[in-house]
Amino acid sequence: MDLTATTTDLANAAAEAVRLLPGRTLDPVLAGLLLTTTDDGVVLAGSDRERAIRLSCSAAVHTPGRVLVPAKPFAETLRALDVPMVRIAVEGARLAVRTPNARFALPLLDADLHPGVPTAPPLAGSVDGDLFVAALTTVAATASRDEALPLFTGVRVRADGDRLVLAATDRYRMAVASLPWTPVAADLDALIPATLLAEVARQARGQVALHVDDNRVGLAWDNSVVTTALLDGSFLSESKLVLSAVDTTVELDADALLAAVRRVALYADSRGVLKIEVGDNEIRLRTADQQAGEAEETLKADVSDGRTSPSFQSRFLIDALKPFSGGRVRLAIQPGMRATVFSSPNAEEVMDLRYMVAPMRPPAT
Amino acid sequence: MDLTATTTDLANAAAEAVRLLPGRTLDPVLAGLLLTTTDDGVVLAGSDRERAIRLSCSAAVHTPGRVLVPAKPFAETLRALDVPMVRIAVEGARLAVRTPNARFALPLLDADLHPGVPTAPPLAGSVDGDLFVAALTTVAATASRDEALPLFTGVRVRADGDRLVLAATDRYRMAVASLPWTPVAADLDALIPATLLAEVARQARGQVALHVDDNRVGLAWDNSVVTTALLDGSFLSESKLVLSAVDTTVELDADALLAAVRRVALYADSRGVLKIEVGDNEIRLRTADQQAGEAEETLKADVSDGRTSPSFQSRFLIDALKPFSGGRVRLAIQPGMRATVFSSPNAEEVMDLRYMVAPMRPPAT
Repeated sequence: MDLTATTTDLANAAAEAVRLLPGRTLDPVLAGLLLTTTDDGVVLAGSDRERAIRLSCSAAVHTPGRVLVPAKPFAETLRALDVPMVRIAVEGARLAVRTPNARFALPLLDADLHPGVPTAPPLAGSVDGDLFVAALTTVAATASRDEALPLFTGVRVRADGDRLVLAATDRYRMAVASLPWTPVAADLDALIPATLLAEVARQARGQVALHVDDNRVGLAWDNSVVTTALLDGSFLSESKLVLSAVDTTVELDADALLAAVRRVALYADSRGVLKIEVGDNEIRLRTADQQAGEAEETLKADVSDGRTSPSFQSRFLIDALKPFSGGRVRLAIQPGMRATVFSSPNAEEVMDLRYMVAPMRPPAT
Repeated sequence: MDLTATTTDLANAAAEAVRLLPGRTLDPVLAGLLLTTTDDGVVLAGSDRERAIRLSCSAAVHTPGRVLVPAKPFAETLRALDVPMVRIAVEGARLAVRTPNARFALPLLDADLHPGVPTAPPLAGSVDGDLFVAALTTVAATASRDEALPLFTGVRVRADGDRLVLAATDRYRMAVASLPWTPVAADLDALIPATLLAEVARQARGQVALHVDDNRVGLAWDNSVVTTALLDGSFLSESKLVLSAVDTTVELDADALLAAVRRVALYADSRGVLKIEVGDNEIRLRTADQQAGEAEETLKADVSDGRTSPSFQSRFLIDALKPFSGGRVRLAIQPGMRATVFSSPNAEEVMDLRYMVAPMRPPAT
């Protein structure tokens, strides 16, 4: 193998490969990056058996080849370079990264030991990258990180006609986003690990294509494809988001509420609970703790129907409000231990996002 | 106590107080902030017995008073506010922080239990804040963090005529900075904890006054004074920076060398050692490790006298080069296990900085 590439292009591809491969593996072969030349460039591929990635980068290929190198040192070397072009060449048992003044020589690993990188399953459809990223930023963060309950570590991704519906819950709250979808194949209903989708949300751009079969799902954008095994289990239906008992509706500026919640939450008890007292044309946030003291703050709000006043964990409240930053938010409040649903009062949003939070016992006062 | 203050002024004073008080103490009284009204404002003071702080902030005082409140919650509450003015008032057993729409009530602590805050010792002289901060940023970071050897956790601060000399070493390297000094009292030669000076470097501005007696040192700027107990022990003399055996001098762009060191160091052995091979009009950085592979990079440089080629721990090399970023750096190299001294070839610098690094055995090749 001998090729010349634009440094930033190859450095970006290598960095993206390292971020998409979790790198939990102790096996140096699985922590390696397979470099394979093509007619007009090089493909960077890797797999830890569960997740697999494939990125392409254009390059001038002088001698074709296929090698396996340690992924992180390769990416770090490329990132540290400050020259426009870089040459990558096999020299004996080394892969040399060369610039006019420098040579960095990585040990080659045995490419024949690598299990290979599966290709992506058939195309299901595609979605606008910006909307998909915005939806994932909220939904993937709502999934549980508790791997003892794998079901709750996934995001359910489901095609419904010309909408793509993303849903995740950790049992205490649930986020459901719906966005425009261009279907190609008929069916898509997959439970995808949230950790991968959170990483995709940091990197995807342009149009994102979704590929799926019975066992694997693939996400493709730009010159990148990442595939992963699906999670097992039937996710609880997001249609459970029933709002039959809503008796109080509050509407106000999301950022004002977010800032007030952050202030008042400084005085929350050990459970972190904050009460929203609903009044006439205002709401009052209230916390109290024997040690920390107590806090309250009043905000103007449009209140309709009843005066049901729920309490929440303040960190869940903050997560529920963040996606509505920059606009207004509507709280549909139900009595008793039923959830409150946060949504945008603006019916013209391209992406429909609903965030449901379960109430808590109020703070002692 | 009842007063009204500009929110940002009081929030900044409280935040600075929290950063300057280490907060290692478990005693809530010592983790408290003493607020005392004056004719035209309020003084925030605190002490953990070793270190003491006193900051003033102008305020409209409605009722004078003196109270003790938990420092961090007080500072966090003020920082979270987004209104221009804030009212601070004792209400029963609480100190209330009030804005037009909100009330945050902190529990009062018993101010009578507080040991009090010592006043600053006599003034020794003063120094330009920007230069002092620049010198401290390098010198304080060079001190050891190993509290088992307290001597090396200090910065020696010494007045020498109209120069202030700061020196610190962790035994493997030493930084010595000299800057203009306006003396008031005759003598200043104190060993000051580097952790405090590193914090001062983040906060000091304008002119910085130094106060000293046999036991304590004080640093004052703007509306802030911090005092601390001196460290015991006689610091090794920075005059040991003898350059009698320099046989090789190298001069080049500091940033180019810094970037190359960072790249080549990625391939360093477990000791992190990097060799500088001095040639004619160039130097070559070189590392080698059985696992990581090997790297080398060549840089143009002005070389005079010999060709002594030392090896260093790359992280010490990076620390030694950073203060010269933006200009050229001169390496005065001595043979054998004698130190190399990094300095600026520009004799007109207001601050004179010399950074000495001990050599290491070269990497295996």
